[in-house]
Amino acid sequence: MNVGILNVTGYAGAELARILVRHPEVRITSVTGRSAAGQRVGEVFPHLAALDLTITEEAEGELDLVFSALGHKTSAERLLPFVEAGIPVIDLSGDFRLKSAAEYAKWYDAEHPDPSRLEEAVYGLTELHRDEMPGAKLVANPGCYPTGAILALAPAVKQGLISGDIVVDGKSGVSGAGRGLSLSTHFSEVNENVSAYGLDGHRHYPEISQELGRVNPSMELSITFLPHLIPMTRGILSSCYAPLANGALLGGSGRGELVELYRDFYRDDPFVTVPDSPPQTKQTLGNNGCLVYPTIDPRTGRLIVVSAIDNLVKGAAGQAVQNMNVMLGYPEQLGLEQLALYP
Amino acid sequence: MNVGILNVTGYAGAELARILVRHPEVRITSVTGRSAAGQRVGEVFPHLAALDLTITEEAEGELDLVFSALGHKTSAERLLPFVEAGIPVIDLSGDFRLKSAAEYAKWYDAEHPDPSRLEEAVYGLTELHRDEMPGAKLVANPGCYPTGAILALAPAVKQGLISGDIVVDGKSGVSGAGRGLSLSTHFSEVNENVSAYGLDGHRHYPEISQELGRVNPSMELSITFLPHLIPMTRGILSSCYAPLANGALLGGSGRGELVELYRDFYRDDPFVTVPDSPPQTKQTLGNNGCLVYPTIDPRTGRLIVVSAIDNLVKGAAGQAVQNMNVMLGYPEQLGLEQLALYP
Amino acid sequence: MNVGILNVTGYAGAELARILVRHPEVRITSVTGRSAAGQRVGEVFPHLAALDLTITEEAEGELDLVFSALGHKTSAERLLPFVEAGIPVIDLSGDFRLKSAAEYAKWYDAEHPDPSRLEEAVYGLTELHRDEMPGAKLVANPGCYPTGAILALAPAVKQGLISGDIVVDGKSGVSGAGRGLSLSTHFSEVNENVSAYGLDGHRHYPEISQELGRVNPSMELSITFLPHLIPMTRGILSSCYAPLANGALLGGSGRGELVELYRDFYRDDPFVTVPDSPPQTKQTLGNNGCLVYPTIDPRTGRLIVVSAIDNLVKGAAGQAVQNMNVMLGYPEQLGLEQLALYP
Amino acid sequence: MNVGILNVTGYAGAELARILVRHPEVRITSVTGRSAAGQRVGEVFPHLAALDLTITEEAEGELDLVFSALGHKTSAERLLPFVEAGIPVIDLSGDFRLKSAAEYAKWYDAEHPDPSRLEEAVYGLTELHRDEMPGAKLVANPGCYPTGAILALAPAVKQGLISGDIVVDGKSGVSGAGRGLSLSTHFSEVNENVSAYGLDGHRHYPEISQELGRVNPSMELSITFLPHLIPMTRGILSSCYAPLANGALLGGSGRGELVELYRDFYRDDPFVTVPDSPPQTKQTLGNNGCLVYPTIDPRTGRLIVVSAIDNLVKGAAGQAVQNMNVMLGYPEQLGLEQLALYP
Repeated sequence: MNVGILNVTGYAGAELARILVRHPEVRITSVTGRSAAGQRVGEVFPHLAALDLTITEEAEGELDLVFSALGHKTSAERLLPFVEAGIPVIDLSGDFRLKSAAEYAKWYDAEHPDPSRLEEAVYGLTELHRDEMPGAKLVANPGCYPTGAILALAPAVKQGLISGDIVVDGKSGVSGAGRGLSLSTHFSEVNENVSAYGLDGHRHYPEISQELGRVNPSMELSITFLPHLIPMTRGILSSCYAPLANGALLGGSGRGELVELYRDFYRDDPFVTVPDSPPQTKQTLGNNGCLVYPTIDPRTGRLIVVSAIDNLVKGAAGQAVQNMNVMLGYPEQLGLEQLALYP
Repeated sequence: MNVGILNVTGYAGAELARILVRHPEVRITSVTGRSAAGQRVGEVFPHLAALDLTITEEAEGELDLVFSALGHKTSAERLLPFVEAGIPVIDLSGDFRLKSAAEYAKWYDAEHPDPSRLEEAVYGLTELHRDEMPGAKLVANPGCYPTGAILALAPAVKQGLISGDIVVDGKSGVSGAGRGLSLSTHFSEVNENVSAYGLDGHRHYPEISQELGRVNPSMELSITFLPHLIPMTRGILSSCYAPLANGALLGGSGRGELVELYRDFYRDDPFVTVPDSPPQTKQTLGNNGCLVYPTIDPRTGRLIVVSAIDNLVKGAAGQAVQNMNVMLGYPEQLGLEQLALYP
Repeated sequence: MNVGILNVTGYAGAELARILVRHPEVRITSVTGRSAAGQRVGEVFPHLAALDLTITEEAEGELDLVFSALGHKTSAERLLPFVEAGIPVIDLSGDFRLKSAAEYAKWYDAEHPDPSRLEEAVYGLTELHRDEMPGAKLVANPGCYPTGAILALAPAVKQGLISGDIVVDGKSGVSGAGRGLSLSTHFSEVNENVSAYGLDGHRHYPEISQELGRVNPSMELSITFLPHLIPMTRGILSSCYAPLANGALLGGSGRGELVELYRDFYRDDPFVTVPDSPPQTKQTLGNNGCLVYPTIDPRTGRLIVVSAIDNLVKGAAGQAVQNMNVMLGYPEQLGLEQLALYP
Repeated sequence: MNVGILNVTGYAGAELARILVRHPEVRITSVTGRSAAGQRVGEVFPHLAALDLTITEEAEGELDLVFSALGHKTSAERLLPFVEAGIPVIDLSGDFRLKSAAEYAKWYDAEHPDPSRLEEAVYGLTELHRDEMPGAKLVANPGCYPTGAILALAPAVKQGLISGDIVVDGKSGVSGAGRGLSLSTHFSEVNENVSAYGLDGHRHYPEISQELGRVNPSMELSITFLPHLIPMTRGILSSCYAPLANGALLGGSGRGELVELYRDFYRDDPFVTVPDSPPQTKQTLGNNGCLVYPTIDPRTGRLIVVSAIDNLVKGAAGQAVQNMNVMLGYPEQLGLEQLALYP
């Protein structure tokens, strides 16, 4: 199968290439990039020298599926012709994640190029929308923070275990900010430093809110999401807090019951694990897993869930390949078997 | 004035020495350490070679004030003779922070060596207990996490701005775990990694709870505190969340009013700043400041306060020197003028 | 094929397990470890949970090949019974690397348990000793620094391009020091810090000297090797310096000729690349490649060669699997196809 | 005394401000910056909020001394009017370091704005040129790498202990590359990575060569200098290698004699220490010291000297203040007493 990657030169695009190069059912036949057009992939990314391709401005050749790692707005504009031609696409930008064009306009400060496509787009968190994937033509790959936060909270929200007063405190490695240059990703500024950002609102908030709302439409949600920048390259740890609902998990067996409920929820999900001890981001380095650890603060009866992912794998490129596998009927784990790199 | 430092060989003790060496009113005349006894300070810590002293097992000579950077239990045992002799002491351990001997026994898993002293001990967060400092003989220096969390929340708690349903998400550099060896502070395990710990309860929780309770005894508090380990050496960022109380800060001017209230609260505190933009831990590196940034999540009406300190300075040794200055009538900032190291 | 890993609980042993779990011709059937005996592999290393085995004190069951990641001395003692039973072994310790028992005694401060085996042991740098591998029963996997240094210098030494006055300045990530605890690998001590160590001599020196001597017995070698500790987890960069021999590479075409000579030397080596630009350790993260970049200092006519490897892969576990493949007649790259993780 | 800082907005300029704010004889009265002109210093650098000044495009007011932290070429152009007006200047750029206009043109790819000033400029490594400082009007502050390398080698070169075949392997934190953005200082590219750069030549080479040549004009020098980028913010470790000259330091007492000779050389230099154990860059963090550790490789008779500095202090701003102190007759250590921050 021939696939193309739009904007292979960012971190998500390069990670897609790294994974797909070793996928047994896929041949990458076209990769694009603006500033690097005309260069060999291996000149820009020596670790991808095995990918014997020249970067072009526009996708070329017959493609059976297209991934886009372009920025929002541009991504939709470049993908729509493929969608209209019936070629399946997986969009790693934020362009098709929100169902509401008004919300899109508010958070992305732009008119959506084709709001009519928002409803049909499948929100590509496989664990929640696996049934919609086979045959889908337009999949919106989730944001990195939403991936960790939604997987941490979905079981509790689904079961009505908590009130909707949720705090999500996200901690991300710097690669989440991409390969573009800015003072806030300049080594000497970020190293030996931690900070919160997006205090006035972050684009990943509406995704979290929309998807948890769809998990349990009867729950009234009031979600605060605050992201933080951590001096490491890869990884997101999401610490989620919410009061238990009245009567939920009463009795001394609370934590055990909670863990059972979570394990049950993710029983058929090969990439989600509910471990016995609190997760560390390093346990997912380079790997498509999500570790979800629920517990209860015994002093307050508050639910705490901590989840860990690699923001570039389960939070971006690995998730996209997982989606592709389900869309096309391949085994869900195909090409994603790599264990985490430790230490 | 002659001062002694018990256990100069840990990070807090070494940082005390670094600060006090340059304090114009102080002469360090005795430093202790168990495993390093007999060695010159400069052999163990080349950066302290200016301190021309031999480390001894027990404090020696006439001392006008004693700092202890020993572990809990041992610290109280070693300090009590000084206290009984009327020599002022500042204890950086947790031994005299809690007012309740029962709470102490529960959290520190030990009987307190002299519970009768708990009430008289001054909780050494100068900003809240400055009036009790002059002439005090026994000061309990706060824990590092409580310092950041209490300073972040005290103004809101005092004014009844929030309900007591508080979440404190703490993020600390690794030096907070001390100089003792463990797999969880081994470089290859911690680097490029973030994790939560203390999910069943952390000793700094009762401090936060006790002190916020004393700030506003009429507020019912339900505090969840979750600490995280960050791959950096120094710094704590505390992200605090609580619902606004009914009717608090209504109207579009909410954030401005909130900032005014915080600035007012800390008007006479030279080391607390309410900055115009969200703080970064690096802005306090090596410095005794605490940056406190309050804001309101516009979508939920939740108060968010982010604070930053250097865990070894305002969170330990610098705070201790600040306390000493006030206890003895020196200018509060004496010896603590060093600006943060940037970048 | 059933293989065992002695001491799976160190970093090299865990990395072996990570690679071998996905090797199509291998089944790991026994893993040992002293302090962790009785635990499941996944309890100690969550990323290896797929390896459904209990750690035992001694190797168990029928094994077709044994890897040892034990420390020196113990490694030889545990491996000799397998060797005597005719079971092929690959030793990642230093026990069989040196040909001279006297040199071993001097550098390892221990009598060798069986000096008679030193001559028969194959020094397991596949690129130099591939011909000796098929059918070998005892392979001594190289040290991490020697791997980078020898591959950087072998072509120049072989061709007599340089005088033997060689300086090797090695820079290693901290995982090279292993999983054992020490102040020199304590996060707060190593982070934001660079230092040289082993100034009086390092055990990897005699390996470098022995192997370059075997590459060109007629060259008189005078090698200085100085290792440095770098605040990162994985990777070794070796910067090697030597004066060009009289008359070598004269003329403006020097650098081009040099590169050709190096590419020629490594033409049949799938894991060694001579790139067009200076290598970075990150380009080999998690990958078995070695990047070798030779150039000439135009001001002094000195040869400079910079090489990069992942110390735990090409510098340890990956090299061991590469050796196994050649010993047993599998394709040399089998199970080692993983691309470097970037960024 | 009123001083101005040209380009306070880079790392060297900001570090100058941090040091000078606390210098008892200095008042900073003017700071310049291009892109930040019009902003308060504290808006750009919160840690410098104590400096109550607005950044301007041009220096303003009466100045008794001017520091320039501008880039080369611009720096000379902006400083020459002050020099002509008889106002003492200290230039942190490379514009006045080289004595030869031809060398300047070659390495800086620019015609020097006023070659006639090159001879009169004092090379501002106080330890070598202290006698030329009092009353000097134009001081060229050394480069960061040359500071560490020259101090490491000067005693050996002076005494003719070595042949001139010198290798300097420099390892620098990323702040040495400045505050300007580039992919090579982007966090995710530099973190967990080590690389060599400047393999075709680095501007700091001619400084090292010139100054060591002036230390001993009769020694024929053949110096290779290779810089490396290390994933840390501050610090330079220089590892220097050279063969001992015939007959130098013969006998078993070699290392002791060598240390004596080095201690003797630096006897009157308050900022240079010859420690008893190999130095670490962290031992100079935020401090103006240079640690110089000479030893002999017993296997080859090669001299090895390892030196450590903080590149922004002794390698830039601290050195500049040290020069100012000597130029103006203040105690050499005034304002530079801060101990290193550890850990």
